[in-house]
Amino acid sequence: MEFVTGVTQRDEWSIAELAGAPEHSRGKIRGAVHNIRDMGEISFLILRRYDGLVQCVCEESNSGVSLRTLKEGATVEAEGVSHREARAPGGTELCLTGLRILSEPVEPMPLPISKWKMHTSLEALLNNRPISLRNLRERAKFRIQETITRSFRDFLYSQNFTEIHTPKIGARGAEGGANIFKLDYFHHPAVLAQSPQFYKQMMVGVFDRVFETGPVFRAEKHNTKRHLNEYTSLDFEMGYIDSFTEIMEMETGFLRYMTEELKKRCEKELKMLEVDLPDVEKIPCVPFTEAKELVRQTYGRPIRSPYDLEPEEEELIGKYFKDACGADFVFVTHYPSKKRPFYAMDDPADPKYTLSFDLLFRGLEVTTGGQRIHDYPTLSRKLKDRGMSEEGMDQYLSAFKHGMPPHGGLGIGLERLTMQLIGEDNVRETTLFPRDMNRLEP
Amino acid sequence: MEFVTGVTQRDEWSIAELAGAPEHSRGKIRGAVHNIRDMGEISFLILRRYDGLVQCVCEESNSGVSLRTLKEGATVEAEGVSHREARAPGGTELCLTGLRILSEPVEPMPLPISKWKMHTSLEALLNNRPISLRNLRERAKFRIQETITRSFRDFLYSQNFTEIHTPKIGARGAEGGANIFKLDYFHHPAVLAQSPQFYKQMMVGVFDRVFETGPVFRAEKHNTKRHLNEYTSLDFEMGYIDSFTEIMEMETGFLRYMTEELKKRCEKELKMLEVDLPDVEKIPCVPFTEAKELVRQTYGRPIRSPYDLEPEEEELIGKYFKDACGADFVFVTHYPSKKRPFYAMDDPADPKYTLSFDLLFRGLEVTTGGQRIHDYPTLSRKLKDRGMSEEGMDQYLSAFKHGMPPHGGLGIGLERLTMQLIGEDNVRETTLFPRDMNRLEP
Repeated sequence: MEFVTGVTQRDEWSIAELAGAPEHSRGKIRGAVHNIRDMGEISFLILRRYDGLVQCVCEESNSGVSLRTLKEGATVEAEGVSHREARAPGGTELCLTGLRILSEPVEPMPLPISKWKMHTSLEALLNNRPISLRNLRERAKFRIQETITRSFRDFLYSQNFTEIHTPKIGARGAEGGANIFKLDYFHHPAVLAQSPQFYKQMMVGVFDRVFETGPVFRAEKHNTKRHLNEYTSLDFEMGYIDSFTEIMEMETGFLRYMTEELKKRCEKELKMLEVDLPDVEKIPCVPFTEAKELVRQTYGRPIRSPYDLEPEEEELIGKYFKDACGADFVFVTHYPSKKRPFYAMDDPADPKYTLSFDLLFRGLEVTTGGQRIHDYPTLSRKLKDRGMSEEGMDQYLSAFKHGMPPHGGLGIGLERLTMQLIGEDNVRETTLFPRDMNRLEP
Repeated sequence: MEFVTGVTQRDEWSIAELAGAPEHSRGKIRGAVHNIRDMGEISFLILRRYDGLVQCVCEESNSGVSLRTLKEGATVEAEGVSHREARAPGGTELCLTGLRILSEPVEPMPLPISKWKMHTSLEALLNNRPISLRNLRERAKFRIQETITRSFRDFLYSQNFTEIHTPKIGARGAEGGANIFKLDYFHHPAVLAQSPQFYKQMMVGVFDRVFETGPVFRAEKHNTKRHLNEYTSLDFEMGYIDSFTEIMEMETGFLRYMTEELKKRCEKELKMLEVDLPDVEKIPCVPFTEAKELVRQTYGRPIRSPYDLEPEEEELIGKYFKDACGADFVFVTHYPSKKRPFYAMDDPADPKYTLSFDLLFRGLEVTTGGQRIHDYPTLSRKLKDRGMSEEGMDQYLSAFKHGMPPHGGLGIGLERLTMQLIGEDNVRETTLFPRDMNRLEP
């Protein structure tokens, strides 16, 4: 009988192992052909791997290895001898003694992916996504994105949150409104989740604090630089709060942890993309109406929409607090009740406003959060006041009828957060395979 | 200007802190009323929290606190003095000196959630999901599930995998066939992802090794104990493999890590649910045809479907290897090419079979995986041989045209893995909010 017992270590170097190997050690390393520089008698073969680039030197007359027919995009196993060389990436190169081809491409690259910057339109990058992502700077964005998600989870684990998986197909949307994708579910009308809102609230009754990192779907009909029709939402919901400030504190705690993790895990990528990590030591808070008024007074911009922030206002609030106290982030609090969903808790001091907030990062909203109504009579009254029916919400409302702690939470748009962190100006740049009104592929 | 600087530690005990506090310390603890036992002059109030149960003792005449009007499901802040008491959960109870009510229910519990076992039908549990999940044994399943997912990620991070997020709405399905949900995407036909297959393969060209933990959607028209129409898939795909055995090795490595993490993080839950952790030291491998023949010979079960395993055959293969070598897991390898998707790599030794496998866990398939074709001409030929068109697959095929390392991967059904681990007999038991042909809510 044959058995599998676990991962077998391969007799192969990583880039760190090559760099750490004694001078003139023999070894192997695998990777994709990034580019080849033929200098006549000597050629340089650069391999691309998950952990970076490796320089292999080939002296054809000595080694018997020829790179003449090797193509960009082929994958190979290179065999050779380690050699310290200050000009090689990582400080060590491999002097080739053998080369085994693992796979070969059939067409030349459609984009100059081995260039530092591709100087290609976003449209072309997206149309050739599986190829353009092979570029070092393109893929670096997604290593940063991975670290954001990972640090979100790890921070919340440390704060006693439980991870949940909630359904994306449902009978009705959590947020209401028209921006909802509909589908046929075995001859029943169904929708795609706009957010895990109802589910994460119900789960607060089970685990006190919960989080989810998953896709959400919004059929918004605007094709802007900051909208996606499918995105990854970093959601949490926490019970037993005394004030909605605790939600902002938890987010600030996450952001501080995130920047530490980025420094630790993404040093190379941050440098490659010239990212300035934001200051997250302290984040200023400003009430919605005050923020609007600040912008009107400081920049002479008239208030046109009294219940919501216009994109330009968000930018100017960002600018104001950057200038005033060097802040990259601003919490705008107490949004008008009119523009927040029914489950938002109104401010007892002035019920025209809610105990809610948005987080702006360099002038763009990246988070919406707030305290929720936890008491059934209040929730029921608010639904009634809004002319909404309780029909179809039985299970959600049942959680409140049977007791729910005071609670609140938030949702962070992962791609937007990544975009603002990196300093891109289009959210598609920080989405592996974006979905917008015109883009359903690849 | 006001600032938020991070998480403020609350002046409040966790259960571990109460247990660790010196005798007769004063403190507070929050939770939901799990139950109240009125013994006359003395009453016991049991609070339910994410970290377990706390016993509070109330002597009404001494403390001035009354529990008479307190309801099950209310949430409270209890204040009191710590007292060692061997019979209390955790060995320490709180002698109440004060009680602050944070929220109150308006209806009595529809299910006896404070009972050890609820003795209710699965139907009733699912119809009252936000309430039934509050039961300690119900929720324990999902702490175990959380640890499975967490250990999948952490193990793969340690093996140099990169986490990705791929779109769930697309123009076409990866697996083909009829079990696909369709939707209207801004007047274009679209589908929900049956798996991240195409995307994770494309991403192997970018990061060498990738994984994703996310929802997948299958419009299968059978309502069985082992099918869900939406489930969480733990997917990985790894490049530069020499053999498809490496994929099974990686999965075995994960399973070994998972059991260690479960022992460490879920001791209480494993005990509560009387879970026997499986043996994952070594997992036997058996080729598909041999496995079928074994079952025929050993159990006298005729082979009716030569290209696939019937559920009963899976059970009997599980039984055979349990009896033969105490194995809880079995890799069944070399499935017939006919029943595997076009991208599966055929076995060069016999192209009627593929370099693929399923993992059976206690007689149920929990994983499907295998090596994929990485070379464009072979892929193109296989599509042609199957009468399939390359149309609409341009981007996927483009990854292969421009070079892809030999690779393979797998997908694990999270809910099924949890079900088999815990010993449930219906996958809905280990799904927070299951979706099946008849269930779209809650």
